Amino acid sequence: MKITSEFSMGKGAAYINNQLVPIQDAKISILDWGFLRSDATYDVIHLWKNKLFRVDDHLDRFFNGMQRLHMDIDMTRQQVKQAMIDCVKASGLTDAYVEVICPRGLPEPGSRDPRTCKNQFMVFAIPFVYLLKPEQKGLSVMISDRVRIPPSSFDPTIKNYLWLDMVMGLYEAYDQNAESVLLVDEQGNLCEGPGFNIFVLQGNQLMTPKRGVLEGITRKTVLELGREVGLSVVETDIQPAMALCADEVFATSTAGGVMPVTALNGEPVGAGEPGVVTQALRQAYWALHDDPRYGLVVE
Amino acid sequence: MKITSEFSMGKGAAYINNQLVPIQDAKISILDWGFLRSDATYDVIHLWKNKLFRVDDHLDRFFNGMQRLHMDIDMTRQQVKQAMIDCVKASGLTDAYVEVICPRGLPEPGSRDPRTCKNQFMVFAIPFVYLLKPEQKGLSVMISDRVRIPPSSFDPTIKNYLWLDMVMGLYEAYDQNAESVLLVDEQGNLCEGPGFNIFVLQGNQLMTPKRGVLEGITRKTVLELGREVGLSVVETDIQPAMALCADEVFATSTAGGVMPVTALNGEPVGAGEPGVVTQALRQAYWALHDDPRYGLVVE
Repeated sequence: MKITSEFSMGKGAAYINNQLVPIQDAKISILDWGFLRSDATYDVIHLWKNKLFRVDDHLDRFFNGMQRLHMDIDMTRQQVKQAMIDCVKASGLTDAYVEVICPRGLPEPGSRDPRTCKNQFMVFAIPFVYLLKPEQKGLSVMISDRVRIPPSSFDPTIKNYLWLDMVMGLYEAYDQNAESVLLVDEQGNLCEGPGFNIFVLQGNQLMTPKRGVLEGITRKTVLELGREVGLSVVETDIQPAMALCADEVFATSTAGGVMPVTALNGEPVGAGEPGVVTQALRQAYWALHDDPRYGLVVE
Repeated sequence: MKITSEFSMGKGAAYINNQLVPIQDAKISILDWGFLRSDATYDVIHLWKNKLFRVDDHLDRFFNGMQRLHMDIDMTRQQVKQAMIDCVKASGLTDAYVEVICPRGLPEPGSRDPRTCKNQFMVFAIPFVYLLKPEQKGLSVMISDRVRIPPSSFDPTIKNYLWLDMVMGLYEAYDQNAESVLLVDEQGNLCEGPGFNIFVLQGNQLMTPKRGVLEGITRKTVLELGREVGLSVVETDIQPAMALCADEVFATSTAGGVMPVTALNGEPVGAGEPGVVTQALRQAYWALHDDPRYGLVVE
């Protein structure tokens, strides 16, 4: 069946039900457990100057997540990659936010057994989304005492849509005139924010939470870069008080890379300006995009 | 715009984007945060012999959930009720599973701020879904040591789609040849299962978990009925060991009412048959449906 659309691909494109469609036409049944049960895994890869960054790291995580969730889309990694490339090409974008998703699908009528579902696969490519817009110097973040959904409930290394804790945290942050939020783990240590990992620099020591977080690809990249430039890099427990008196704090995310956090709980971090180390890591991060080991060129 | 569909309403109907459509045509944008962030609240009401059961209790919870999530659909309770009734009538069903949903909607392009979303509203009515099919005598349930997403992360009294813990628990149960699963709270006490609350009877004492659970409408009904028939009814902490040596155990859900649990962790509960009290409460529950205080007749 060929869908005739009133839309162009200009605002983004999606690959869904084995078809390329304008993003406005990309829809999922409201009976899909991906919607009704948050029963899905996904990954976000960015396209930057026509290059997909560390796509194999993202697909390792995506395929691992599907396996752990007992999902099977019956596609090879190369087919998934091709669907991403087709989608990017259809969109005509040179910088894009590319998301691959595997929702559980619909159970058989009357059944509540996920094993009866045909797992789905879709990709969409839309204009690049920034957590911190390029014209902004830094993020203002509130540390909430809300606990990020813990590993005893669901393994956070499987990328998931369990985000209502994050959304509630965002509204708490807005009430305090902050732009975003950091949730804590069950012991009250820093955990993660909506779509980002967090790093804290104290002297030569670069720290990031070790437990209960998504193992972000930007996080991984910064751990590697930090070691390369001679920082002492540790994954450890970080009390909120340590962040509040840190030299520098930054967030990492596919949606924007390395982003300075210049205010925490309404107080400036360090001098309230993007830190020297943060800026160096940010530059090194973007420079990596030209490295053929990391960037897959979409012609 | 009038949608011409290849489907009839025979398999169910939905009210979405201010239109009544066959359930197969009821779709949501894949960019809606209801899907991409599990950012939604909902409720399930059942229609039984043309009567909607305790619809105002369900709508109290639904409207409270929206308010707590900072959502506004700009509809009165009467308009929501009318949309449900229209949907049920369009489906032609006399027994149905009726779900109302408020997903966050789409943020403005490039934004990650939920305040920029236009909150959505939809209803669907499909044939009645049973957790325990009428021909089955009882459920076989496994008690998992997986922790239900705790109140410190998200308030469980706001009905939500954060279900990946439940889904993973279901697969654990299937591995043990059980049909469903019970998760525990952070202290290891019984909590809830996928779509149901749990009750444990020991002598004259009827117990149900007091913390970390959805305050189900069927649960509420059984608490009332239990007191009426002279049981000592308590909301309390229940250790798994207490359930394993209980006289009777049953699950409650809008998807089936009062349902005997006849096996726990592969061992029979009591004599392995639906208990006398469970059956009495089940009968009393269905009898209530004819009470005009509880059943809203859909002509």
